[in-house]
Amino acid sequence: MSMAGRELTSIRSPRVKAARRLAKRTFRHRERRFLAEGPQAVREALAQPGVLTELFTTAEAESRHADLVLAAERAGVPVLRVSGEVMAELAQTVTPQGLLAVCGFVDVGLADALAARPTLLTVLAHVRDPGNAGTVLRTADAAGSQAVVFTDASVDPYNGKCVRASAGSLFHLPVVTGPRFDALIPALREGGLTVLAADGAGDRTLDSAIDDGLLARPTAWVFGNEAWGLPEEILRHVDEVVRVPIYGRAESLNLATAAAVCLYASARAQRAGADGASGAAATA
Amino acid sequence: MSMAGRELTSIRSPRVKAARRLAKRTFRHRERRFLAEGPQAVREALAQPGVLTELFTTAEAESRHADLVLAAERAGVPVLRVSGEVMAELAQTVTPQGLLAVCGFVDVGLADALAARPTLLTVLAHVRDPGNAGTVLRTADAAGSQAVVFTDASVDPYNGKCVRASAGSLFHLPVVTGPRFDALIPALREGGLTVLAADGAGDRTLDSAIDDGLLARPTAWVFGNEAWGLPEEILRHVDEVVRVPIYGRAESLNLATAAAVCLYASARAQRAGADGASGAAATA
Repeated sequence: MSMAGRELTSIRSPRVKAARRLAKRTFRHRERRFLAEGPQAVREALAQPGVLTELFTTAEAESRHADLVLAAERAGVPVLRVSGEVMAELAQTVTPQGLLAVCGFVDVGLADALAARPTLLTVLAHVRDPGNAGTVLRTADAAGSQAVVFTDASVDPYNGKCVRASAGSLFHLPVVTGPRFDALIPALREGGLTVLAADGAGDRTLDSAIDDGLLARPTAWVFGNEAWGLPEEILRHVDEVVRVPIYGRAESLNLATAAAVCLYASARAQRAGADGASGAAATA
Repeated sequence: MSMAGRELTSIRSPRVKAARRLAKRTFRHRERRFLAEGPQAVREALAQPGVLTELFTTAEAESRHADLVLAAERAGVPVLRVSGEVMAELAQTVTPQGLLAVCGFVDVGLADALAARPTLLTVLAHVRDPGNAGTVLRTADAAGSQAVVFTDASVDPYNGKCVRASAGSLFHLPVVTGPRFDALIPALREGGLTVLAADGAGDRTLDSAIDDGLLARPTAWVFGNEAWGLPEEILRHVDEVVRVPIYGRAESLNLATAAAVCLYASARAQRAGADGASGAAATA
């Protein structure tokens, strides 16, 4: 049996109250801890020593995910068994999965992320919707982006909706939070990256960027707010503003789908070489 | 002033009750009418004669969108002014925009959609989440897909969440609803289309499909359920099962982002020619 011991049934229990507070950004950043729900998140957090600091579980989830609970105990993580009602209060989803991880922040500094000389990097600037931000994070991970930067004007990556939408990707690749955009661009350029902004107002199409070999270079892609795109002061300072062509009658793509098209175009160009010829490998 | 006349303030008014019922699939399909919210939807519906059958508006929205209300009246569409409370009941969003269109169904038959000889077509099979379905519809429109088919096992395209997520695209391109998958595939082939399924279990990568010229052909892309992909009986019957490569540590892409990558790859291949060389135009 687990060390979980007696089930906590009151949402007024101090440990439960302390965890619940992490639903708010202020408390998350004061304690540098956040909540991640479900077995996948627990597995990801456990894979990084020291990240999982506390595990809440229901009796049912404890028997369904006995391996995870055991692994947490073996790693010295306090496991707290709570009633279904308490879990429902703690979890931010309609159908809580019975496992809730309290995790330490996982973000790294910009200098550390750039020290690894990434060839594909994703920047979220002024992205306000946490679900969109998390989906872009997941997409960036899938496309092989080696780091994701949330600028100071973007949503908190530790927001519960963002964590969920990232589907584990928050734990997969270096995430940088908080740099100001005006300091970020020079740092990206010093890191050897061409800075491209994706914006419907771009004067260059994605296809021309591919055809001209632009995407084969080490690239930082900047994605902006879904409703109003990127502000002028950002567009002025990037190397190129690129638009995904709209062939039909849609007014625009949504943020995550536009990011997917851009990032996969870079992934292909960096792997296949600048001219699009199959088989060639132009970048190391 | 408008013909809207006296404001309806009771949700028990017969016209209001009749419109409210359209939130349910059963009633939508019995009456072949659906609800579309906001000025963009009203504009799109008005652009197709006979589609907009009734317009609900608040006094505030009527003055803010006087042009649209006037255009509706000129088209002989009954305009009903309702109180903010009634609009909140009718609308399915947290912040209703004050304009709600009752529209006739806009879908077309499969034979009609294929008669136009589309070179890029999108099929949603077993897609259950209306938000995802609407986003795929919007993405398909943007990528130049010339028709979208919802199979009988997919969500209702007239579901309010799907209509909203489509951001007007439901009105932009031919939408076909309800065909069974086993009857659909032969019809697509007779229409000259190669049928490709997007699935993480595919034995061919998207890049190899591009490199081999497969994507330059007229193509119907089949996208499945986000959680469990496409069933075996579908994968067996398509021409090829193609997977979007995962370069990082994400387990998968979400449905709309995977669809964006596949559809834009087809759009580029069909425009640029099978070998990916810039400038060439292989397809008419």
